[in-house]
Amino acid sequence: MKNFTSLEDVSDPLGLIKKAASHKRNPLADLELGKGKTLGLIFFNPSLRTRMSTIKAAQNLGMNVITLNTGNDSWSLETVEGVVMDQGNAEHIKEAAAVMGSYCDFLGIRSFPSLEDRDTDYQETLLKSFKKYANKPVISLESATLHPLQSLTDVLTIEDRKRKERPKVVLTWAPHIKALPQAVGNSFAQWINAMPYDFTIANPEGFDLSTEYTKNAKVMHDQNEALKGADFIYVKNWSSYENYGKVGKFHDWMIDQNKMKLTNQAYLMHCLPVRRNVVISDDTLDNEQSLVIEQAGNRVYAAQAVLSTLLENN
Amino acid sequence: MKNFTSLEDVSDPLGLIKKAASHKRNPLADLELGKGKTLGLIFFNPSLRTRMSTIKAAQNLGMNVITLNTGNDSWSLETVEGVVMDQGNAEHIKEAAAVMGSYCDFLGIRSFPSLEDRDTDYQETLLKSFKKYANKPVISLESATLHPLQSLTDVLTIEDRKRKERPKVVLTWAPHIKALPQAVGNSFAQWINAMPYDFTIANPEGFDLSTEYTKNAKVMHDQNEALKGADFIYVKNWSSYENYGKVGKFHDWMIDQNKMKLTNQAYLMHCLPVRRNVVISDDTLDNEQSLVIEQAGNRVYAAQAVLSTLLENN
Amino acid sequence: MKNFTSLEDVSDPLGLIKKAASHKRNPLADLELGKGKTLGLIFFNPSLRTRMSTIKAAQNLGMNVITLNTGNDSWSLETVEGVVMDQGNAEHIKEAAAVMGSYCDFLGIRSFPSLEDRDTDYQETLLKSFKKYANKPVISLESATLHPLQSLTDVLTIEDRKRKERPKVVLTWAPHIKALPQAVGNSFAQWINAMPYDFTIANPEGFDLSTEYTKNAKVMHDQNEALKGADFIYVKNWSSYENYGKVGKFHDWMIDQNKMKLTNQAYLMHCLPVRRNVVISDDTLDNEQSLVIEQAGNRVYAAQAVLSTLLENN
Repeated sequence: MKNFTSLEDVSDPLGLIKKAASHKRNPLADLELGKGKTLGLIFFNPSLRTRMSTIKAAQNLGMNVITLNTGNDSWSLETVEGVVMDQGNAEHIKEAAAVMGSYCDFLGIRSFPSLEDRDTDYQETLLKSFKKYANKPVISLESATLHPLQSLTDVLTIEDRKRKERPKVVLTWAPHIKALPQAVGNSFAQWINAMPYDFTIANPEGFDLSTEYTKNAKVMHDQNEALKGADFIYVKNWSSYENYGKVGKFHDWMIDQNKMKLTNQAYLMHCLPVRRNVVISDDTLDNEQSLVIEQAGNRVYAAQAVLSTLLENN
Repeated sequence: MKNFTSLEDVSDPLGLIKKAASHKRNPLADLELGKGKTLGLIFFNPSLRTRMSTIKAAQNLGMNVITLNTGNDSWSLETVEGVVMDQGNAEHIKEAAAVMGSYCDFLGIRSFPSLEDRDTDYQETLLKSFKKYANKPVISLESATLHPLQSLTDVLTIEDRKRKERPKVVLTWAPHIKALPQAVGNSFAQWINAMPYDFTIANPEGFDLSTEYTKNAKVMHDQNEALKGADFIYVKNWSSYENYGKVGKFHDWMIDQNKMKLTNQAYLMHCLPVRRNVVISDDTLDNEQSLVIEQAGNRVYAAQAVLSTLLENN
Repeated sequence: MKNFTSLEDVSDPLGLIKKAASHKRNPLADLELGKGKTLGLIFFNPSLRTRMSTIKAAQNLGMNVITLNTGNDSWSLETVEGVVMDQGNAEHIKEAAAVMGSYCDFLGIRSFPSLEDRDTDYQETLLKSFKKYANKPVISLESATLHPLQSLTDVLTIEDRKRKERPKVVLTWAPHIKALPQAVGNSFAQWINAMPYDFTIANPEGFDLSTEYTKNAKVMHDQNEALKGADFIYVKNWSSYENYGKVGKFHDWMIDQNKMKLTNQAYLMHCLPVRRNVVISDDTLDNEQSLVIEQAGNRVYAAQAVLSTLLENN
């Protein structure tokens, strides 16, 4: 593994999941592995879980961590090639990435999409520039289109909790008041497609995710129908991919206990943060079938598996 | 000790003070105690002394530290139960606290009052929610109503410097240009009441602190009278508790050398930051009787005593 | 060495350069030297390279690091003596420096000039106040007038790459859209004057640096003439010292390949960040003669030499 920015970077996904499970059983077993190594975490956008869990994972491996909030702590970066830099951006990604790479052994990058222009967002210019210029392994801390640390966590959680070999996993769109990225949905689809699960995606018409990630997954526009017999429900809002960035006002897609009754006593998953009583009802989040806190806790071990693999490979 | 958010959390205050004194004599004696343990510090408000001294204390015990500035680094939190979260707050404290708790062994929380509504502030909703949902020991880094790390420091400083068994300690209100919390005053009163000192509080009429914390302490509205014979003067502004949040314009309550002459060559204490020539005069702050820098330095050992006790107990 | 805020603080510059070169060869050789020691980094202005490289240097020596962004993380500071502090600044540098000094073994301070009043900037009030009140060694992370960590890096880079004993080093002004400090230029001149190099400074008329730092260096106002036969070109913009803070609009001073042809196949240096095609052309920055990334990488070893020297001396 050279980078961790997509499932496509991972040669052995099952091995990575097993490694995460092993770190979960014994988080401090490899406290010497990262000694003298430095993880740089560069945040172009805010972060709570990703920030804290990735720092914790690095500390569990004895690594040093340097965090940088672009904007607050430093400059804004230019990504266009050949431009005359006489406007707001004080530094080009070419220099910034190369310099950060020279100070760190691995670089984690968090960079959200604008949700204004689909082609621009899906080109992943910032992440690709870091991969091109940093000369060090790059870890996505959520990019414009994917969130692989979240998905690795999600699969680890399902593997931990599944009650049958081939559980029915339903990714369902749910309402939200703001335009959110498709990254978590895309990435979940990408990873679940690689697992031996029965996978269904439910979303309103006009809110299909890119087929680049959903591939052969069953996509349904009737939420109730999709939820039937589900063993796991993964709830997430995203803005429209087709009508790019459009917010969907389908309040009846909120997940509540009535919808949970349609399932096979499904476990509830969500990547957090979640707006209560907008995305999921209070009683559903507070129900014992909810795995959202356990799932967030697993973020540490997913990040730790990625870091320990990179430490062993690089 | 399960938490450290008030004197009431401390079963053995004298033992804790002794432990702080022991850390002061030999700060690095327990460098292995916190190995592999993580302290999360969550700042809802700015901090200099509390931030730096608590980080230093954790490092003296070999702990890892993760700091998070809410707002800059992450999201704003909802604390009301049962609300439909379709407004500004993107995450509920229920999830945020539980998740942060899962990443850290202890959580430090700094959260100031609004000074707009007394009942709301004195309910300490944010701090209580963290205690309820984090599933880990919670340390107050100054809450809406109390600042126990400061008070433990203050008592440590008095114990270090006292020239008699039962010194006269005077907490005196002093002027300030802005509405400040009552937290330091409340907390100082709470802790000093637990010590075998002669304790007097001096403040203008209309500026009495809550009797919940002042208890049986002598409260005087004549500053000069109160200062007579004092061995320690603890200077601090607070806005009104009665007329909640009101700023007091009593410039003649500033502490200067003339007032110090009324005392028994008292030591001067203040929690800092202090506005010079508004709260205390330059010559008084720069006088050798001033303990303000030594007192701030003691913050490290107070925090270290709390952390080492929690490490031993949890 | 008691502080590191100017070349004048350094008794043995060549020894310091050798130490930096030694850290570069073996960065982790002194991993135990800083054990239990704390470096405080106080940023009054944003920073990328200085922040990351100095943290990395401290970690290479096993030190703990506490970073503080004034403004975001804490308060703004008053530096004037004797003032009645009833305005915006909530704390005086006297207390802040003393307190920070009590929490840390060394303090790094970053503080840019206002570029509005030359006398005020060149008095270096903030840096001098820290040296006066912190009671601990102070390291400049770039002050109003000097940037010695950068200059030590620059000399290390030249020593590594020089192809003759007495290379011709040209510091050339180049255009920029904003008013920038003279600190890098001043500091480079100060250090290069201490080395056995052939040193020339090229800048437009009206943009001479202070003779306090340029001393006997040759100052030329014809850039092409100055570049002839250069072995190293150090490119940097600064606003006017004479007409204090004035921006120079001399676009023909941009460094491009035509200008590089005048040199003795010179190496290109710049402290970064650099605005491409404003200060230096794309093809010149991307040319193999450019040392800018290597130079930025050397920041770690310069900082490490300063820290290890302070650790040994204090």
